[in-house]
Amino acid sequence: MRALMFDPSDGLALSDVPTPSPLDECLIRVTKAGICGTDLQILNGYAGFAGILGHEFTGVVERAPAGEAHWIGQRVVGEINVGCNVCERCVAGVKEHCLQRTVTGIRGRSGAFAEYLSLPAANLHRVPDEMDDATAVFVEPVAAACRILEQIAIESTAHVAIVGDGRLGILCAQVVRTRTPDVTLFGRYSRKRQVAQTLGLEATSDTANQAGRFDIVVDATGSPQGFADAAALVKPRGVVILKSTCHGEARSPFTKLVVDEITVVGSRCGPFAKAIPLLASGAVQTAPLVSHTFPLARFHEAFAAAGRHLKVLFDCCRET
Amino acid sequence: MRALMFDPSDGLALSDVPTPSPLDECLIRVTKAGICGTDLQILNGYAGFAGILGHEFTGVVERAPAGEAHWIGQRVVGEINVGCNVCERCVAGVKEHCLQRTVTGIRGRSGAFAEYLSLPAANLHRVPDEMDDATAVFVEPVAAACRILEQIAIESTAHVAIVGDGRLGILCAQVVRTRTPDVTLFGRYSRKRQVAQTLGLEATSDTANQAGRFDIVVDATGSPQGFADAAALVKPRGVVILKSTCHGEARSPFTKLVVDEITVVGSRCGPFAKAIPLLASGAVQTAPLVSHTFPLARFHEAFAAAGRHLKVLFDCCRET
Repeated sequence: MRALMFDPSDGLALSDVPTPSPLDECLIRVTKAGICGTDLQILNGYAGFAGILGHEFTGVVERAPAGEAHWIGQRVVGEINVGCNVCERCVAGVKEHCLQRTVTGIRGRSGAFAEYLSLPAANLHRVPDEMDDATAVFVEPVAAACRILEQIAIESTAHVAIVGDGRLGILCAQVVRTRTPDVTLFGRYSRKRQVAQTLGLEATSDTANQAGRFDIVVDATGSPQGFADAAALVKPRGVVILKSTCHGEARSPFTKLVVDEITVVGSRCGPFAKAIPLLASGAVQTAPLVSHTFPLARFHEAFAAAGRHLKVLFDCCRET
Repeated sequence: MRALMFDPSDGLALSDVPTPSPLDECLIRVTKAGICGTDLQILNGYAGFAGILGHEFTGVVERAPAGEAHWIGQRVVGEINVGCNVCERCVAGVKEHCLQRTVTGIRGRSGAFAEYLSLPAANLHRVPDEMDDATAVFVEPVAAACRILEQIAIESTAHVAIVGDGRLGILCAQVVRTRTPDVTLFGRYSRKRQVAQTLGLEATSDTANQAGRFDIVVDATGSPQGFADAAALVKPRGVVILKSTCHGEARSPFTKLVVDEITVVGSRCGPFAKAIPLLASGAVQTAPLVSHTFPLARFHEAFAAAGRHLKVLFDCCRET
């Protein structure tokens, strides 16, 4: 099969590689896949990953292990963490933190920028018939945004800021808006803010007089600088949610965290089962975010566009 | 009165200054005061403070405003934050986060390294008769350690690490031990660890094989590096409590916070009413921490000793 491989020394290349064939996993023909900020970070050295990139995808199950034949022919999305199934964390149902875990396209497991990928049946979720492929690709990042709702209580009177007007910022803003109407998106790019505004979000670049005004601030900048920007906006005893995964260390506003007794919550993967209805109902909208769809062969253009635009998709079945 | 003044350009000096005389506050003759890590940080530029240093103290009320005469003659300790009394936070009882607050010896308010200081009666707590002055000086830092118990639930089965074998680390370890027996103190100095061990604490410098082993880790190093050290010890989805106030920024282990979904909780001043019984009952012991007691005039020796030893006190009434 064709697959987009990343090698830290050689960069990206479209290669012909064996189709995955693990007997205990489902084989999924990838229809669409999305380029995520984390993919761009991996190209900069994040996570030290080498192999087939990509972890936002939808596809159709073509082969399944014994007892899982009902998945064959289903349109699915897939949770990306695969645990060892025997450690304390896996037994507790927290495969996302299994120390032996593999993660699709991020850690020891081939990703979705390919014609096929494999995942255990336990990781799969059926895509509702009424949801198109381009929307289904967003289940993984919307689930990551929904993780915030599992970690902290957001009152309907809470003032929330999202820092970062990228794809994840706009998804987090829409998810948080299901709990409180007072959500402000801060970002640098007028074009991206305009997309946020078409979704009914309040979006601005102006942080003047906003310091210390928010109960909860989400850092979705994808940049180490985002931590300090988020901390500047939060109230004493407020909460900063860190959603950015990026290469390198951040200079943190250490004294502010202590003196203002800020709580900082690292936040990663989230519940697909919560994300799917939010996308299906239209509470979270994604169509205005998608600027381009490329075949895998045009990966150079795709990654260049992903650096500038909100969401770029791959049509993994299309040849050219 | 004599007072130990700090000026960022001239350093420390013993000066003759007017005795405080605010009509709406109690005048307290300071018997003993303690040098805290924060005082040493202020000498390095932390908080940008200039004036009379010192915020850990005990003394006797000599004068009180109308209606508060019952305080006269009482041995007291004092909460160090004084709010504006009218803002939203003060009305909610959180004067520690009033934006207009003054803080004894730290922010816009004269401190305790003097013959007298003043505080509102609302800040005062009576010292039990059976508690000596040298112990009462520890009410403020033990209250800061007790703040941890207000911020997070510590199960009796929790594995807790304290990073930093200084005065605050040893107090935090003793306070946390009132909730779980599994408390390990990590520190560099064998002499300080030995003091911790005389208090029945497990204390070690050896972090080998300890990475990711603790549910809760308290950074009490007083150093920006402590954040990363604490983060290395904590389990995925664990909690890091930041107790260090220090000058400058910390390089934070940003990616680890996100990927392992660590919660970081900044923690500052705490409840005197919880600290006093812990000290009175002996659950928290302080006598082995006190290495020296100096008159104010010997402040050079006192601060030099405070840099090397666990707790150095001032005898604020003694001339020489």
